[in-house]
Amino acid sequence: MREIATAGVETELQRYFAAARLRASDYGDHYVALWDCLEQASTGGKRVRPAMVLAAYAGFGGRDLALVTPVAVSFELLHTAFLIHDDVIDRDLARRGIANIAGRFSDRALAHGAESGQAGAWAVTASILAGDLALSEAHRILARLPVEAGRRMRLLDLLDRAVFVSAAGELADVTNAARPQPLGVAEVLATLEQKTAVYSFEAPLQAGAVLSGATDAAIDVLGRFGRLVGVAFQLTDDILGVFGDPARTGKSVVADLREGKQTALIAHAGATTAWPAIAPYIGKADLSAPEADVVRDHIRACGALQAVGDLARDHAAKAVEALDTPLIPAQLRGTLTTLAGSAVNRFR
Amino acid sequence: MREIATAGVETELQRYFAAARLRASDYGDHYVALWDCLEQASTGGKRVRPAMVLAAYAGFGGRDLALVTPVAVSFELLHTAFLIHDDVIDRDLARRGIANIAGRFSDRALAHGAESGQAGAWAVTASILAGDLALSEAHRILARLPVEAGRRMRLLDLLDRAVFVSAAGELADVTNAARPQPLGVAEVLATLEQKTAVYSFEAPLQAGAVLSGATDAAIDVLGRFGRLVGVAFQLTDDILGVFGDPARTGKSVVADLREGKQTALIAHAGATTAWPAIAPYIGKADLSAPEADVVRDHIRACGALQAVGDLARDHAAKAVEALDTPLIPAQLRGTLTTLAGSAVNRFR
Repeated sequence: MREIATAGVETELQRYFAAARLRASDYGDHYVALWDCLEQASTGGKRVRPAMVLAAYAGFGGRDLALVTPVAVSFELLHTAFLIHDDVIDRDLARRGIANIAGRFSDRALAHGAESGQAGAWAVTASILAGDLALSEAHRILARLPVEAGRRMRLLDLLDRAVFVSAAGELADVTNAARPQPLGVAEVLATLEQKTAVYSFEAPLQAGAVLSGATDAAIDVLGRFGRLVGVAFQLTDDILGVFGDPARTGKSVVADLREGKQTALIAHAGATTAWPAIAPYIGKADLSAPEADVVRDHIRACGALQAVGDLARDHAAKAVEALDTPLIPAQLRGTLTTLAGSAVNRFR
Repeated sequence: MREIATAGVETELQRYFAAARLRASDYGDHYVALWDCLEQASTGGKRVRPAMVLAAYAGFGGRDLALVTPVAVSFELLHTAFLIHDDVIDRDLARRGIANIAGRFSDRALAHGAESGQAGAWAVTASILAGDLALSEAHRILARLPVEAGRRMRLLDLLDRAVFVSAAGELADVTNAARPQPLGVAEVLATLEQKTAVYSFEAPLQAGAVLSGATDAAIDVLGRFGRLVGVAFQLTDDILGVFGDPARTGKSVVADLREGKQTALIAHAGATTAWPAIAPYIGKADLSAPEADVVRDHIRACGALQAVGDLARDHAAKAVEALDTPLIPAQLRGTLTTLAGSAVNRFR
């Protein structure tokens, strides 16, 4: 069932992009290229959000793949839209090691004889529009879902909350960067929950459950689980972003430090006597590998690494505890418990 | 009826923003400020799109203000979203003479001790998020509309087309700017139709008609009228952007020239022998008032001003002709004929 369901998401996405490309061809090559870029932006991820939708739906006895697949696709496109607009905010030209929409449209502009300033405009324009198109389709899919009004309203409310809270988290992430002092750990946790956990875990899990006709009480439990496990994932990501093995995670271990990202590690270290020794390196754009090692030693020695690891495990454990109720069917509890374990036991 | 309907749109928007601000207050002052900015961005316009929805709805006998008002609001928020994201693309910090979201969040960043680079990030982040929130609400309103599925699907399809075609037009607008030669007039017209006419006139008119239960044939007529009148408005705007009276239009008469905007005036002039004398001034960032006068003289002398004026009047006349069918109730025909006239008879 799981493999069939995931394959259905891929098929549905491919069909959507093929139709959009055809439709775009009436408006010229650049617009077709934009849709190619949007499809590329939506591939290569782990399909975490569709997996949440599908797991919750099947977990409460849902069996109609034709009904649940579009909902899974909707949350994946929401994710795509957020990533694309996030890249505009961060001025990134690449994601997952390859040129993103901005990078590709910047190259495209230069190939068409544009000046570098114009190339920047092509990049921003294409990225903003692609995000808008993906966001629009995420909404449209739920709006068209053939379910009765009450259920559709609840799904729409979940999507609305996902958009509203993620925007709050994204804004907090950017405004926090201007703070001269490290954030408190509680602030970091709140931002992680808002920016990522709600739209990536809480909302997709609850959407699958709503579609399956689960009880309100069960849906509440999934929400709590989703927020906790989402934060556990993000805390682990923050650890891997400094202490991971790039060969296995595919993630730089200096980028977060160079950027001065306000992670839980920094928040914890910021409240210790080690901070004056760490602070000069945080946000240092040309941080060297030996300097990064110095920072790592301090973060380890002051107890921040241990504390944040504990915090991640604590969140994962609380997430699993939340499932300990007859409201959650045993098989779903098993799936989600495994998920919570994987949140904190990833390769370093 | 008209005044009551328009007042209803204002009330609905105010209610929406008040609720959003309250909800945002759980996420800190910056997020409340973002919603303030979004509300400001949605005010001060002429409510053209709501007026189209309301006119078509009432024109076909619709009388349920509680039903049509949200549809009018949806198209207004779509417009707000496009304006906001347009400003990011154009890197503008003001609109209608006052600081826009980017301008206000840039100031806000500096007041919170951010560096200028960070202030730019606040500006872009706030603008992108605000546009996403407005776009999301535009979709959500139609998705929640209490009408039967068939009618909702048709409204959703109109919104979908509006988003899809506007994105194509916006992209074309930016990619066209890199072209070394002036565009042809036909290309300029196609871009105007895509970027503005479809979402501002065609779609809102058709949405009002769909909601009112008009026939497919009548809805097609409104679509044709909307595209033609939308282009007539834009052509007139392009003329006013070079030959208007800033004191009456509130519009600069050098900005388009300095920016090198690819208007129908430039397209027409570009195909005449006057072009070599005009070209050096188009896109000249520091174009002086006397230089602008030189350009105006050339554009007038080569026949471009007359030709584009004729083109605008021709579009308006064709729009009125399209209405000459018993499919369109007499009163609606009167309203729309007046609209078409106002498209081309605006103060210079």
